[in-house]
Formats: sequence, C-alpha cells, structure tokens
Amino acid sequence: MSTTNRQLILRSRPKGMLAPGDLQLTEAPVPSPGDGQALARVKYLSIDPTMRVWMASDSYLPAVAIGEVMRAIGFAEVVESRHADYKKGDKIIGLTGLQDYVITDGKEKRGFRKVPHVPFVSDTAFLGIFGGNGLTAYFGMMEIAKPQKDETLVVSAAAGATGSIAGQIGKIHGCRVVGITGSDEKCKWITEDLGFDAAINYKQPGWKEKLTAATPNGIDMNFENVGGEIMQEVLNRMNLFGRVVLCGLLSGYTKEDPGLASFGLVLVKRLKVQGYIVTDFAARFMEAGTQLGKWKMFGKLKDREMIVEGLEKAPDAINMLFTGANIGKLIVKV
Amino acid sequence: MSTTNRQLILRSRPKGMLAPGDLQLTEAPVPSPGDGQALARVKYLSIDPTMRVWMASDSYLPAVAIGEVMRAIGFAEVVESRHADYKKGDKIIGLTGLQDYVITDGKEKRGFRKVPHVPFVSDTAFLGIFGGNGLTAYFGMMEIAKPQKDETLVVSAAAGATGSIAGQIGKIHGCRVVGITGSDEKCKWITEDLGFDAAINYKQPGWKEKLTAATPNGIDMNFENVGGEIMQEVLNRMNLFGRVVLCGLLSGYTKEDPGLASFGLVLVKRLKVQGYIVTDFAARFMEAGTQLGKWKMFGKLKDREMIVEGLEKAPDAINMLFTGANIGKLIVKV
Repeated sequence: MSTTNRQLILRSRPKGMLAPGDLQLTEAPVPSPGDGQALARVKYLSIDPTMRVWMASDSYLPAVAIGEVMRAIGFAEVVESRHADYKKGDKIIGLTGLQDYVITDGKEKRGFRKVPHVPFVSDTAFLGIFGGNGLTAYFGMMEIAKPQKDETLVVSAAAGATGSIAGQIGKIHGCRVVGITGSDEKCKWITEDLGFDAAINYKQPGWKEKLTAATPNGIDMNFENVGGEIMQEVLNRMNLFGRVVLCGLLSGYTKEDPGLASFGLVLVKRLKVQGYIVTDFAARFMEAGTQLGKWKMFGKLKDREMIVEGLEKAPDAINMLFTGANIGKLIVKV
Repeated sequence: MSTTNRQLILRSRPKGMLAPGDLQLTEAPVPSPGDGQALARVKYLSIDPTMRVWMASDSYLPAVAIGEVMRAIGFAEVVESRHADYKKGDKIIGLTGLQDYVITDGKEKRGFRKVPHVPFVSDTAFLGIFGGNGLTAYFGMMEIAKPQKDETLVVSAAAGATGSIAGQIGKIHGCRVVGITGSDEKCKWITEDLGFDAAINYKQPGWKEKLTAATPNGIDMNFENVGGEIMQEVLNRMNLFGRVVLCGLLSGYTKEDPGLASFGLVLVKRLKVQGYIVTDFAARFMEAGTQLGKWKMFGKLKDREMIVEGLEKAPDAINMLFTGANIGKLIVKV
C-alpha cells in the first residue's frame, strides 16, 4: 500500500471552465484509522455537473471551502478497519472527495453506504445507472413527470448519464421520446442503441425546426438538464398542463447568470415546473434500485461509461461535461 | 334606450403602456337580437391585467384582432330577448367586450352565465370577489399553494383584486402573510383592514431588507402576480420545497421581455412552480363561490372596489393597473 495520499485541493473558484490551478494536486500521508474508523482506497470517482456548482457557491450543499479536498462521490474499498461495521474488502460509496484514500467513521451526514454484492453488476454501475444518475432519472420521471402512454417527452443532455436513463424510462412507459444532444454521434447512440424516437443535435443549424418536426403533438414532459436557450425552445413547444422536471441547468453552471428562461410560458401554458435533488428521496433508494435493476436485467435499460484514467485527470474530466466531450457516464479511475 | 352602441376598437398593439389611439372609441347602431338571441346592456366592466396580454399577442386566448371590439369581462342586463333561456332583466356575466351593448346567443365558447340573485351582494361583487378575482385566488391557494398552519405566504400585487383575496385565504388557514405593494396607503389597507401580518412597499429603499425581516422563517408559498425583480427576491427567500403559485407576471406585460427570473433557485430549493388560469377550474366555480361567500358572510374576507365612471375611461383604467393607481378591484361603470 502506498504511503502517499494524493488529493485535489480547491485553490480558487473557477470562472467559466476550470483553469489549471483551480484544483491543485498535492500529496499528504495516508491517514491511519483511529478507533471506530476505517480507511478506504478510492477506486472510482463519479464526475458530475453538480461538482461545478459545489466549486462556485453555496447551493443545496455548502460550497467546498478554499483549501479543502474537492468534494466528489466515489467508490472505495476498505483497506483497514477499526470500525465494527466495516471490514477489509468492503466496498462503499459516498463523498470520498477527489483523493486516493478516505477515512470514514460511518457517521458522516451523507455517510458511506455499503455496496451489495450483485452478480454481473460492475463496481462502476453503482456510480451510474444504479447510483446517483439512475436514481435521479428514476425519481424525476416517476415522481414529477409521471409519464403516460403516448405522451411526448423531451430530454436535454440526452446522451448524458442521467438524461439517457430518463429517456429510456419514458420509452418503458410507452412515450414518444426525443433527445437533445450536442453531437451526431450522441444522436446516433440514443436513437439506434437506446431506442429514442428522435434526436436533435442543437449544434446544427435548423435544430429548432427539427425539434418542432420531431414533436408533432407538442411536448407533454420536459426532463431538463441544461436550461437557457434549449429549455426556452422546449417550453415554446410544451402543451397545456405540461410537466417540467428541473434536474439540472448545466448551461448556466459555467456562466455568471445561470439558467435564465421565461416564466411567461409557465403561466400561459399552465405548466408545472419542479426542482429536485436525488437525496430528497433517500428513503426510497432501495425501491428505485430494485426497479432499475429489473429493467436493466430485462434489457429495457442500457448504459454506457467513459472512463478517464488517473486522479490527476479529474479537472479535465469535469470540463468535459461542459464541452460535451463525454457520452454516458463519466468516471475517473483513480 | 339609446340607439347608439359605443365601442372601443383595438387599432394598434400597444408598446408599453396604452397610448391614445390604441383603443379607439367608435359608435355603431345598437344591434337587434335575431331569433335565438338576446340583447344586453353592459353595466360594469372588469379591468384586469390580462387585458394587456390579450392586446399584445396570442396567449391562453388568441390575441384580440386589430379592428375588433376590445375583449373584456362585463356585467350586463338583458334588455330584449328572443332566446328561450333569457328574459328581460336577467343579469349576466361574460366576455361582453368594451362596449355599451352585446348580443348573445347563449352558445359562445366562453358563454355568458346568469348571475344568481343573492341578498346583500352587489352586482359588481360578481366581477371581483365572487368573480374572476375571487375564483383565481381560491384555486391558486387551495389547489397549488395548499396552505398549512404557521407557514409563511408572500403575495405580490397584494392590494390588487386577486392578491388581496389570496392573502386573506392564507390568513384563514393560519399562515403568516406578507404582502408586497407599491404604496404606503396599500400597505396600510392590507395590514390594518385585511389583517396581513406585514406589508412591504417595494418602491421604498431597503424593501429587500424589510422583506427579509418580515419573513424570519423564510417563505413557504409565493402567490406571484408580478414577476421580474420582485419575484426573484421572493425566490431568494423561499424555503426548500416551497410552492410558487404563478398567477400573473404583470411587471412584464408592458415590456418586450416579460417575466425573466432565474430557474436556478427553483432547482436548488426544489420548488414547485405552477401556472394556471382560472377557467381551468370552471367545473368547480360553484363550490368555490359558495366557500368564498361563506368566508365573506362571516367577515373573514374583505374586498374593496375602485369604480371609474364612463366607458371612454377604460383605456386609462387599464393603464392604472400598471402604474399601480388602483387599490382593490378596478371596475369601469359604463
């Protein structure tokens, strides 16, 4: 076992994309677990748009303090334990932060949970389809969108880890599903592999007309990850009494003035717009995970991962979310 | 009976406030009712912010066409009838338009309804507290806000016909109710006469700090009539899982770019924002009217009217809504 714990420390709050130096790679000794603590080796890190928000300001969680290890959800394996509930080899998921090793006393507010052993399920799936992304898609669709057969669902960032699952949940419920993405390759993946009815590349001219053509009966549900101009255009096509699942506004996370769109259409179209954070539904994660597992087992849900090798690449990986370089779940292998 | 039917015709779509000539006063002969029609004399006209929207563009109703009589809800009395369901002296409410006389065949899409005879209730009350405003306040509060005892409700345009009732419905349910208005006189009315717990004059310096001080436990419900900066400030004070009743966005009705506010807070605070139009609940108007009547009878609801005399004053009256000159229900007596 290494004696060095590499850590990415937040040194400055980024303006726009992350710049070199916003996160600084440093080395500390690997900590020793005290009584009632366990030491775990971080194996995989989940790279999510919300990390950019944590770097910027207080939101649903306090901002990461300057000088602290950058917050991140990770998958780790216990290497040494002086805690009754953990033993060596246990796999855990929680807010490990961007580092090689983490100490847990099992009492953190957003504590680590043990990963169950499930045959044929990879470790990384617990960060994606069976982790935050799958659960986020599940509760947004089932509790806010409430899809009905033959309704039209439009998903933005549709080739992302959450959007791709949200769209497939729409298909499972018999909806017409249209995805908005930023590349032809992503469009191809969500239509040919995931079964979306149509996909729109918003970086191509004429995308608004294509959105109109792809939604001949208007839009009943918007699973919104992006905000800004894309959201505005979807609102323009919404039907009366439509539902907007406000899952993310990532177009605004790297800008000064985030997520502006007009409330006027919400009024005249009598829309319901609801924001949520997956942890609001923590008491029901087991129910959701079981359902996602069934769908996956019966081939109704597909996922895709993009693995970036090396803790030191985590800052680049975060930026990839905002340049649109990733398809599916983005993970850093430590 | 006069032989002349004065009408206000939409000649141009206003930019900002109504300008002279946007609505032109003309005279036409009083029409004669044909078989199956009735002729009614318009007595009172309801002056509502939504009229400004109808003049500008298609919304939940098509825009009024250039050259047409301006759309308005009015109270009228049947003066001649060749329709089996109407007899002379019947009082009716519906989209009379801004004119002296109106013909109805009882089949209009948003047809006239007969006003029941209720002791001690004035004709004009059926345009306000027992009309569109009371019903709008009722359904917004009961179906979207769903007030719980001890929650905090903030109402904008709180001295308006709808906001003043919405706030009182909050008080009936045991809430702390704070109103935002544009004058000290309005603040005085809603606190001293209507029983609001606090009132903020947003035209005074320091109003944002006063809003903070008046909502020590944050804001659980926002009954929103205004939009823009006022709405943004209320969103800033909202508690997690708060509800926003999107009833109107009148600060934007006279501007090019209406109702901008950030969806970012809707996301991180997990708010539910819902737009509605009172006619969505048409099937339940009797239920709502009965409840409003009970509250009024037991002194739990108070209303106030401002009557402007003369059809020709209707354009000025519409502008009063946007300068904030009215308190309570604004009505034109024809």
